[in-house]
Amino acid sequence: MSEPHDPLQPRLWTRATIDTLTRSIETVCALSARAAQDKLDVKTKPRRSLGRLETLACQIAAVARGEPPRLLRKTIVVMGADHGVASEGVSAYPQEVTAQMMPNFARGGAAINVLARAAGAHVHVVDMGVASPLPRLPEIQHARIANGTRNFAHEPAMTEAEALEALATGYRLAHQLHADGTRLLGIGGMGIGNTTSASALTAALTGVSPAEVTGLGTGIDQATHARKVEIIRSALQRHGVDPRDPLAVLRTFGGFGIAGLAGVLLGAAATRTPVIVDGFIASTAALVAVRMADAVRGYLIASHRSVEAGHRIVLEQLGQKPLLDLELRLGEGTGTALAMPLCDAALAVLHEMATFESADVSDTGR
Amino acid sequence: MSEPHDPLQPRLWTRATIDTLTRSIETVCALSARAAQDKLDVKTKPRRSLGRLETLACQIAAVARGEPPRLLRKTIVVMGADHGVASEGVSAYPQEVTAQMMPNFARGGAAINVLARAAGAHVHVVDMGVASPLPRLPEIQHARIANGTRNFAHEPAMTEAEALEALATGYRLAHQLHADGTRLLGIGGMGIGNTTSASALTAALTGVSPAEVTGLGTGIDQATHARKVEIIRSALQRHGVDPRDPLAVLRTFGGFGIAGLAGVLLGAAATRTPVIVDGFIASTAALVAVRMADAVRGYLIASHRSVEAGHRIVLEQLGQKPLLDLELRLGEGTGTALAMPLCDAALAVLHEMATFESADVSDTGR
Repeated sequence: MSEPHDPLQPRLWTRATIDTLTRSIETVCALSARAAQDKLDVKTKPRRSLGRLETLACQIAAVARGEPPRLLRKTIVVMGADHGVASEGVSAYPQEVTAQMMPNFARGGAAINVLARAAGAHVHVVDMGVASPLPRLPEIQHARIANGTRNFAHEPAMTEAEALEALATGYRLAHQLHADGTRLLGIGGMGIGNTTSASALTAALTGVSPAEVTGLGTGIDQATHARKVEIIRSALQRHGVDPRDPLAVLRTFGGFGIAGLAGVLLGAAATRTPVIVDGFIASTAALVAVRMADAVRGYLIASHRSVEAGHRIVLEQLGQKPLLDLELRLGEGTGTALAMPLCDAALAVLHEMATFESADVSDTGR
Repeated sequence: MSEPHDPLQPRLWTRATIDTLTRSIETVCALSARAAQDKLDVKTKPRRSLGRLETLACQIAAVARGEPPRLLRKTIVVMGADHGVASEGVSAYPQEVTAQMMPNFARGGAAINVLARAAGAHVHVVDMGVASPLPRLPEIQHARIANGTRNFAHEPAMTEAEALEALATGYRLAHQLHADGTRLLGIGGMGIGNTTSASALTAALTGVSPAEVTGLGTGIDQATHARKVEIIRSALQRHGVDPRDPLAVLRTFGGFGIAGLAGVLLGAAATRTPVIVDGFIASTAALVAVRMADAVRGYLIASHRSVEAGHRIVLEQLGQKPLLDLELRLGEGTGTALAMPLCDAALAVLHEMATFESADVSDTGR
């Protein structure tokens, strides 16, 4: 076994790197959450009457290990990548759409750009491995591992080295964004075929049947859905990966984007940054990260309940109840942008509300 | 029957006024909603993949009877009033808290002030009938009908003239705010005892049993809850009001705030302004307004699902599914402030997203 090294150093990661960094991730601070709740309990409102908004303020305090500032600088990381399994015809859209959407992200015309602007968040777009060539745009981080993954219907989607490189890319990005001042992250993915990858990952990690974790993606018909389920069922059988080995599951069924987002989550936990998780794709990345380091759970904020069938299963595994239920099925991190104003609101309450004493209001209720 | 008159004229309203104005309210424009959906359907995303955010954009277009602007000027109306039934000991807080909270609203320290600031909304506070004297603060509209309602356990809460005056106050306020530029309203209430009033109103209007529509308010114990249910049951029997006469039900069990908010809703519909409705209290006001003029339905946006038992019943009657489910039980319009960023986001998508054509992205999906 090689000597553990600093995962931020520009060296290739090994399994030992993962072991080292996941052991170093601390659980969030329950005392800081308690202090935030105590502060909320003397504000001019019935105790706990702001419900999950109060829980959210306390979680952000727990992650920060102290009182968080009134305003958090926000970045949404969108990772684009292609999936070899798309060649099985499992999507309503052709693979070219992944590459076509990247300049749209760069120019600010996609849904995530518009919603991030409305939420006061910056969008950081990464090419983790789109299949076809992209123009070198300054708005895109070019971190392509390969021109799309392999088709997991026939062979593992990535080599172990590729999966580790994708994890390292995300982990380092989280550190860089933290160094640049980001204190609230959102994560989302884009890539034709990605729900097929996420469904296979979910089935492999949880043991739930492919039929239960496979949905309609961006809008496929029943015949395509049946083929999608069958491809996942057959691939699970073919590869027979140990569900207790998240890296092996990730490299077999995952995508470069999903692996990269899992790396972002590990890096966010290491830098004590809360992460708002988008729908099914990003939540599957979160499940991979949590299987690597259980302490990551405390850093996650589930943004919305996707209409994708597998999302419910993944949320249960993560022990998360999403903030929103808006029947979204777009991805790109759109749910995270919509949840960010709730984080702002939670911190505004913590910082700006009067207390019973300062406002001279009777505090006789419980 | 007196000659119908312009409800904005400074004359006392009669039942004939209500008949006139409710007949004049138009249903929202389905063609404008359709035009908004057509515009959304060529944006760079799978069709309808932004789910309820798209529905929201279309509803706002339907209310505006055309394309709404990118940014709507927002005002949240908070009506404070006291309830005679509070003397039955149905709340966890003493009645004085209503009066104590009004200066807190004026100074900007209450939850609604903080959340409205975060949402970019103005707060308009109205004293509709607080029991004890208030300082004359410029931040409060002083429109006191009386020093609290009567105790409906013994007699009707209001005279018909008082109920009409409260409705007229809200109706005129909606027109004034529209004239001042408001294009999105939120409505909420504050008043010790108001959930008892709302529960009685709900039971009287829907026929659902008092036990099913009565919750724990701001946090009462089981014995107080049992008394609250019994007071409502006995009052329903005593007064025997015709459920098909919303004005009679309103004046018997309502509060000045609830009546005023119902007036705001009628006025908002008359001025084609969408209204985000807070929790149980505001939704009960919406039910009263809808029973007066069914066309008001199309103007309503339910913000959140309150933990109050009766709220589910009222939402079903209104045919509304709330945008948020955050376990709030505060009132003051807090849910409306939290829902406003979703309206902003919906309009941003409508106005700012690229189309398949402009972004050169393949539109092959369905």
